Amino acid sequence: MKQIYVIGVGLIGGSFALDLKKLNAEFVIYGIDHNDAHLDEAIALGVIDEKANLQDVKGADMVILAVPVDATLEVLPKVLDIVNDEAIVFDAGSTKEDICLVVKEHPKRRNYLATHPIAGTEYSGPSAAIEGLYKNKTNIICEVEETAFKLQEKALKLFADLGMRIRYMNPKAHDKHIAYVSHLSHISSFMLGKTVIEKEKNERDIFDMAGSGFESTVRLAKSSPAMWTPIFEQNKTNVIETLDEYINNLKHFKSLMEKGDFDEVYNEMEKTNHIKDILNGIQ
Amino acid sequence: MKQIYVIGVGLIGGSFALDLKKLNAEFVIYGIDHNDAHLDEAIALGVIDEKANLQDVKGADMVILAVPVDATLEVLPKVLDIVNDEAIVFDAGSTKEDICLVVKEHPKRRNYLATHPIAGTEYSGPSAAIEGLYKNKTNIICEVEETAFKLQEKALKLFADLGMRIRYMNPKAHDKHIAYVSHLSHISSFMLGKTVIEKEKNERDIFDMAGSGFESTVRLAKSSPAMWTPIFEQNKTNVIETLDEYINNLKHFKSLMEKGDFDEVYNEMEKTNHIKDILNGIQ
Repeated sequence: MKQIYVIGVGLIGGSFALDLKKLNAEFVIYGIDHNDAHLDEAIALGVIDEKANLQDVKGADMVILAVPVDATLEVLPKVLDIVNDEAIVFDAGSTKEDICLVVKEHPKRRNYLATHPIAGTEYSGPSAAIEGLYKNKTNIICEVEETAFKLQEKALKLFADLGMRIRYMNPKAHDKHIAYVSHLSHISSFMLGKTVIEKEKNERDIFDMAGSGFESTVRLAKSSPAMWTPIFEQNKTNVIETLDEYINNLKHFKSLMEKGDFDEVYNEMEKTNHIKDILNGIQ
Repeated sequence: MKQIYVIGVGLIGGSFALDLKKLNAEFVIYGIDHNDAHLDEAIALGVIDEKANLQDVKGADMVILAVPVDATLEVLPKVLDIVNDEAIVFDAGSTKEDICLVVKEHPKRRNYLATHPIAGTEYSGPSAAIEGLYKNKTNIICEVEETAFKLQEKALKLFADLGMRIRYMNPKAHDKHIAYVSHLSHISSFMLGKTVIEKEKNERDIFDMAGSGFESTVRLAKSSPAMWTPIFEQNKTNVIETLDEYINNLKHFKSLMEKGDFDEVYNEMEKTNHIKDILNGIQ
């Protein structure tokens, strides 16, 4: 394995590129991106070795698809049309059901592995790529049985080399769970940011009064709308369900406050403190 | 100034104690706490020098009141009853209106400075105390004109030595703004934690699928219910207003998703991305 093509040279694709190059200096990393300035930046930053075009993936040993999930629906079938029989193609999208569906009947379905590395930051673009992003992170693999065994092995070897732990899940379950533990967090954060910005027209007041708690809670509101809009669109049903439950919990908390039932306000928080143990499991 | 009494030897009081001791080894730091085990722990950790009782504050040069805001309403008038004319007393509560009101007519009102240092972590108790917690943090001072000038100076000298920047505000404005930039964040985080815990009965799934984004967004759900319940109670009207606006923003986002208006979903996020600049101001 030597010729590696990264489609989308931003945070996710760029971080794979950096780690791969570190793993084996003989790998040649080709970058493909609709944004030519990003390709130049990625070369300047040493993230990729060379620019390439989609047609070039016919020479690929491995293709990493790291573009927004709406673009994945278009690009993935094209990539499978072009690649050779020995190439392994994987994506990194935060939704899995629609993506698996779009290639379900593709003659080269067995060259594709559906993955979602649970890793990232709130930044985007080639300059956001960092070494070691995937170390000790979970990589969720869906429909593993649909991928040729020999090609699975190549990808799994790479994920092991990067220090990732693997969990297998079906696409429907993936999309449902990830709506709770990732997609909802992003919306809660964006709407918190919106609520405060609308109120605090005088930004100086926000600077002065906001502490690290606020900063932590709205961190995800820095995330890229271009990446997140198609995720919410593809996972619409699950995300709306999480929003319904979240809004109901907030309304209940508000009604306890309105009634002056502060014993129950205490209990609500005390029961949720248990999140400590769960977060200790994440770290 | 030499005899310093810290009432409440947890995160906030304990961190003041540690910094004061570092500032001047001649300071004697006395701890007062309704929890005797916390006092022993604070001595063992080197956070305070000696245990004391409330009556002992008659010998104090400075009293730092760092207890939950409901306890402050009870303890602050008692402290003012006891202290000598040259003592400066300040609190660190996250609400200011009720606290200022409870001592408004107190004959020793001029010995009290109403302050809210915007600093903290999600942890509590003496072991949560850390050196340098207040460095480069904002300290909001309310009704400064009600405090004797000579005593203000003592407190301001200390805050300057700890590296804090000062902002002056009236108690009503403080409570209104802080509801947005602090109290609402805590509720959004607690309810996010609740929503996920309720859904994900299998905690292993949360460990495996949740990333650093979720962790950051629910961090505040680790906070102490004993500290936060009375804050929400005292700032009930403002907090309910922020919750109304937050819930409305979430409902609007949900309705855009239901209508399939993803251009507007994109715009909602894009407008809020501007939070980046605001957060850069905080750091």
